[in-house]
Amino acid sequence: MQNIKFENGRLLLLDQSLLPNEEKYIEPKTKEDYFTAIKTLQVRGAPAIGIFAAYAMALLEGDKAELKAYLDSARPTAVNLSWATERMLKAYNAGKDLIEEAKAIHYEDRELCRKISEYGLSLLKDGDGILTHCNAGALATSEYGTGLGPLLLGKEKGYEFHVYSDETRPLLQGARLTSYELEKAGIDVTLICDSMASLVMKQGKINAVLVGADRIANNGDTANKIGTSGVAVLAKHYGIPFYVLAPYSTVDTACESGDDIIIEERSGEEIKTYMFKEPTALPETKCFNPAFDVTDSVLITAIITDRGIHYPPFNFKEIL
Amino acid sequence: MQNIKFENGRLLLLDQSLLPNEEKYIEPKTKEDYFTAIKTLQVRGAPAIGIFAAYAMALLEGDKAELKAYLDSARPTAVNLSWATERMLKAYNAGKDLIEEAKAIHYEDRELCRKISEYGLSLLKDGDGILTHCNAGALATSEYGTGLGPLLLGKEKGYEFHVYSDETRPLLQGARLTSYELEKAGIDVTLICDSMASLVMKQGKINAVLVGADRIANNGDTANKIGTSGVAVLAKHYGIPFYVLAPYSTVDTACESGDDIIIEERSGEEIKTYMFKEPTALPETKCFNPAFDVTDSVLITAIITDRGIHYPPFNFKEIL
Repeated sequence: MQNIKFENGRLLLLDQSLLPNEEKYIEPKTKEDYFTAIKTLQVRGAPAIGIFAAYAMALLEGDKAELKAYLDSARPTAVNLSWATERMLKAYNAGKDLIEEAKAIHYEDRELCRKISEYGLSLLKDGDGILTHCNAGALATSEYGTGLGPLLLGKEKGYEFHVYSDETRPLLQGARLTSYELEKAGIDVTLICDSMASLVMKQGKINAVLVGADRIANNGDTANKIGTSGVAVLAKHYGIPFYVLAPYSTVDTACESGDDIIIEERSGEEIKTYMFKEPTALPETKCFNPAFDVTDSVLITAIITDRGIHYPPFNFKEIL
Repeated sequence: MQNIKFENGRLLLLDQSLLPNEEKYIEPKTKEDYFTAIKTLQVRGAPAIGIFAAYAMALLEGDKAELKAYLDSARPTAVNLSWATERMLKAYNAGKDLIEEAKAIHYEDRELCRKISEYGLSLLKDGDGILTHCNAGALATSEYGTGLGPLLLGKEKGYEFHVYSDETRPLLQGARLTSYELEKAGIDVTLICDSMASLVMKQGKINAVLVGADRIANNGDTANKIGTSGVAVLAKHYGIPFYVLAPYSTVDTACESGDDIIIEERSGEEIKTYMFKEPTALPETKCFNPAFDVTDSVLITAIITDRGIHYPPFNFKEIL
């Protein structure tokens, strides 16, 4: 499952907005193509967005500082985006080969995901029931993924997990991407609606929750796909470990707590009309469509990065 | 908003499966028509199903005991269905006029909803933010509704509520019915995905949660639309009162606790394909689609019936 390919000087992107019904690669050319790919979720998942934006910084002509600001504005919550464009801008100012720098970011992400997957797997047992929310798999990163990494790595090592995948409204990344990716990897997966997480937990089907992260504050408060905080509250209630898995670049020590994290709000049409045969509500009905929420660090059992397994209370300024 | 009309000896049903895009009344004739209307949610909401089945028992020819068993099998979780058909069967065996008995059930439900709404409204303040899940409004009952009753009655009395309506996957009764019904009633309503309830609670937008019930066990454990138990856990976590509103006929003292309540499981196609332009997951991906869950009584602040406001610990054998 390779979502971003750099071959013969060309960047090819697996258009995730078409999955699971069509597997099609697109080739962005202009800066608007790159911006649109990020904005419309043809590429999504914080690490993948960072890798994609790094190649954009390398391949596009023009003022690199302006380009960085333009790309960063496509999705304000994912820290990896501005982290990657910042690194590329520094490399440019230092006169480095930008293609090599982008490739390095891409390669490093593979290594990070592998490490995260190994640390994460050490927390799980063969036969465990796992709940996931959104998609933090290979499609969201470079390989293995973060949230799904232990499952994909575990599969290679002969573990049998039973995964429940929240469909993750409104854009259904859990259905369209996670259940697709796990099914393709031969992992036992059952798709549920987000509202069913409480019941499967109560029924004893879940031994651990695994999610990714879009931005982690210094105190461990974690921004991730909308609904994550609710899953964390449920896990706490039912006594189930709740694990956040992300590369260390997701940690933003400039944010003291989750209060400092900007939450992107998207169009209500994603809720009412976007994927449906018919509108689900009247045209005049208001919607509130935050793309992320912040999970309080007290609800998190551990945060797993490529640097190790971090337990609360979190203070990443000291850890990293 | 009249979902069931009995006019000139004819039963007309507002087909809720077509809302909010089409307002169309259908006239069931055969027992299969009645069964299908219940099964496919052309009529839904526990009290409305009971009223509808009562008219079916009155209007259809044939063995009434067999008819009762047939209708009851359409939706096993809603206690009002078997309660209403049982009452009609007794009326038949006692030689009563069945049309009058069905009309009495219909009329009594209006009175019950009015009482529930008044008790419920006494727990709310003007300006309150309210979260609802699924639909327990006039469309689910006869008038006012149960869960939405205090809002509709409050509107008449000049209260201004700010309602957040969970869309309620997979069948979106919150979007298609609740937001529609409140919008039509001129009540401020904002549609959200189920996964957003945690965030709006955390943001301080919610002062109370109002839901209906499909079956209430003697100890107060409450079966309601899937996702209700998750909302209750969130409300507890954020310190928000969680109210269940239902007619006393929803209480089933034969069920000691929620463990005795049968949970209907429905087709996975409702999750993956039913309302979408394109399938959201691969054909081979398994789904788990329970229609209800049980909320533990310890998560419930109060259960409001037409007999009053009941606080925990619940023991309905003594209350009723």
